Amino acid sequence: MAAAPPDYQGIGTAFVSHYYNLFDTSRPSLAPLYRPSSLLTFEGEPFMGVDAILTKLTTLPFAKVAHQVTTSDFQPVMPDPVAPGMPAPPASVLVFVSGSLMVDDSPNPLKFSQVFHLSPDPANPMSYWVRNDMFRLNYA
Amino acid sequence: MAAAPPDYQGIGTAFVSHYYNLFDTSRPSLAPLYRPSSLLTFEGEPFMGVDAILTKLTTLPFAKVAHQVTTSDFQPVMPDPVAPGMPAPPASVLVFVSGSLMVDDSPNPLKFSQVFHLSPDPANPMSYWVRNDMFRLNYA
Repeated sequence: MAAAPPDYQGIGTAFVSHYYNLFDTSRPSLAPLYRPSSLLTFEGEPFMGVDAILTKLTTLPFAKVAHQVTTSDFQPVMPDPVAPGMPAPPASVLVFVSGSLMVDDSPNPLKFSQVFHLSPDPANPMSYWVRNDMFRLNYA
Repeated sequence: MAAAPPDYQGIGTAFVSHYYNLFDTSRPSLAPLYRPSSLLTFEGEPFMGVDAILTKLTTLPFAKVAHQVTTSDFQPVMPDPVAPGMPAPPASVLVFVSGSLMVDDSPNPLKFSQVFHLSPDPANPMSYWVRNDMFRLNYA
């Protein structure tokens, strides 16, 4: 039997608000959202693990940043059982955001799109971490 | 032991080329890429399953369309084992595309971003299907 899907809209909505709030006010505080196997692709450049990802995010060349989310879409990821009779792997949540970035005192917002794949913590299924993260600026 | 990651760059690159080629030349031919549990979110509107997804894609209000891919990023999705000693669920591939759409005879390209989550077919692990698909136009 397939498990019920998680409340992916609620999880995704809460995550987007939490993530960009931390990003815009205290980037080092993003660390607990990542794990050793987390993957980030930032403008095509790949990073793996909390240290590499946090180093990249905290050394981006701006002092002030504000994300404005324009659209956010969420889907559950419902894996099939690995073998008949086995429980299906836990469902995860796919998050797709588009919006604008205000950087330092520039009056011109930059458009961006970002994808997150959120996995539940096996020890605490109500808690999600970022397994996959892909970020792109959308140049005009 | 964790399985080796799939050739996610090769799989993703081949998929992107195949998908948009079919989309631009013969939208009904996209059907075999979807399954009954496939999810599409198109400009915020949700669809599930081959029939609903294909109906949406083949009734979009244009006669001619051409996708031009600007960036494409790929990541493996490497699930954890469901239980100790059990094999890990099969790895899948996350695809993140941005580009431009030329529609009918309009001279103005539309910017878009799209996410695909590709799962291997259990009966044929070299063959991938679209488990998740999210599409957004990026208005200026």
